[in-house]
Amino acid sequence: MQKWAFINDGFIAEEKACIHFRDLSIQRGYGVFDFFKLKGNEPVFLDDNLNRFFYSASQMHLHVGKTEEELKDILTKLISKNEFPDSGIRITLTGGYSPDGYQIAEPNLIISQQNFQALTAAHLEKGIRLVTYEHQRQLPSVKTIDYLMPIWLQPRIKTHNADDVLYYSNNMVTECPRSNFFLVTNEDKIITPRDNILNGITRKKLLEIVAKDFEVAEENITLGELSTAKEAFITSTTKTILPVTSINGNTISNGTAGIVTKKLMQLFQSALQ
Amino acid sequence: MQKWAFINDGFIAEEKACIHFRDLSIQRGYGVFDFFKLKGNEPVFLDDNLNRFFYSASQMHLHVGKTEEELKDILTKLISKNEFPDSGIRITLTGGYSPDGYQIAEPNLIISQQNFQALTAAHLEKGIRLVTYEHQRQLPSVKTIDYLMPIWLQPRIKTHNADDVLYYSNNMVTECPRSNFFLVTNEDKIITPRDNILNGITRKKLLEIVAKDFEVAEENITLGELSTAKEAFITSTTKTILPVTSINGNTISNGTAGIVTKKLMQLFQSALQ
Repeated sequence: MQKWAFINDGFIAEEKACIHFRDLSIQRGYGVFDFFKLKGNEPVFLDDNLNRFFYSASQMHLHVGKTEEELKDILTKLISKNEFPDSGIRITLTGGYSPDGYQIAEPNLIISQQNFQALTAAHLEKGIRLVTYEHQRQLPSVKTIDYLMPIWLQPRIKTHNADDVLYYSNNMVTECPRSNFFLVTNEDKIITPRDNILNGITRKKLLEIVAKDFEVAEENITLGELSTAKEAFITSTTKTILPVTSINGNTISNGTAGIVTKKLMQLFQSALQ
Repeated sequence: MQKWAFINDGFIAEEKACIHFRDLSIQRGYGVFDFFKLKGNEPVFLDDNLNRFFYSASQMHLHVGKTEEELKDILTKLISKNEFPDSGIRITLTGGYSPDGYQIAEPNLIISQQNFQALTAAHLEKGIRLVTYEHQRQLPSVKTIDYLMPIWLQPRIKTHNADDVLYYSNNMVTECPRSNFFLVTNEDKIITPRDNILNGITRKKLLEIVAKDFEVAEENITLGELSTAKEAFITSTTKTILPVTSINGNTISNGTAGIVTKKLMQLFQSALQ
């Protein structure tokens, strides 16, 4: 079936949705985006994602050129045209066609729908293996398109028998490239780094949802504290809550989803129903 | 007159030279490039630029898919088709159309020709005003498309009455976003940072050309040493040698091109004739 995308002012057959090579995203890696999923055909946490999208654009001196209401209207139409339930929608805003290839121009807005593979029960039980790497993302609170480092790191991640990387900087753990990091202490306290991170929507929702059942804190986690974690997990729109079962080859929680992590998954799922 | 670009396997009218939005440059800011200028219709330092292009691609796990000879053949044809002397040519290699929007795919190769404005004598005399900023480029030896930081910094640069930014990290001066930095000491020694920089072609050529007339050194420059500089200048393909006449509002060399800098400009120009 024909899939549609939206560029700037109109819908276009997805296979024809192209951007001229003089756009600042291709020339200079300059752009922002956001991503949310659909439950059936209903966007999940759409207001939070749109708020962050406008924040990212504003921080990067990019003019969205549409109101939140206008974006919602386009999204409704796109969802209706594509009939692609339980998928993901990405909104990208680039630096535009710059005459000198450097100054910001009129941004290009690209909205597209894509396959979204929920994790299996087996995957959720097996969890994810992380390897630490010293790096601080540029403009961490902004959801830019800059994923140079994690894509460059893919071979290194494989060499270390890991699935993803956990960044740290100045001895402080920050985040994974596409997800936020949490650990559970021996006292069942839930801690997630506060500074120099992207403020994930799933992270924020989880902190709200579980605050009445658990002691939660946004505070620094040192590299050394990783080895004391009883459990650890990551959160993101695509993974929701995914257990971390090893860091730098050291097994956590016997290599499976821990009791607290499972409880959090239940609480999160219940809150969404 | 019709201008042409080259994408992957063929020439295409430049205004139609588009890339599908699923390319990793648009999705994840992942790509490398190189840029050289034409003197008339003759490429300047082409071998050096192609060497660096292949180095950048290799470092980023991107497969060029063409030999150096094949690229030269395409460049010759493009130059002949466009009849656009004294212009600049950019070769870009992106992460390609990735099925999952994250893993590297078959790269897209884009070759384009663009206007190239040589600096006027007045500009060369007036020089450039820099403002320092603490930042270390990711993978500094690789010419990636990542210019997030300097484009984001444009308003700040204007606020500081400067023309460009000079990066430093751990108290050590490194480079400007699109050029290498040099200073001249009171003893007429020429110093340029050695580490954590892009190895500019003009920088390399200049060091070779002037070594018999001046004491030159690739070594650390601390932030504090900036205030002791008798002269300073930057080098790049577009600017060749451009005097730096102030840093953080402090005038250097009475705000004009210094004697040593002018001598270096002469030596460089003579060597190219």
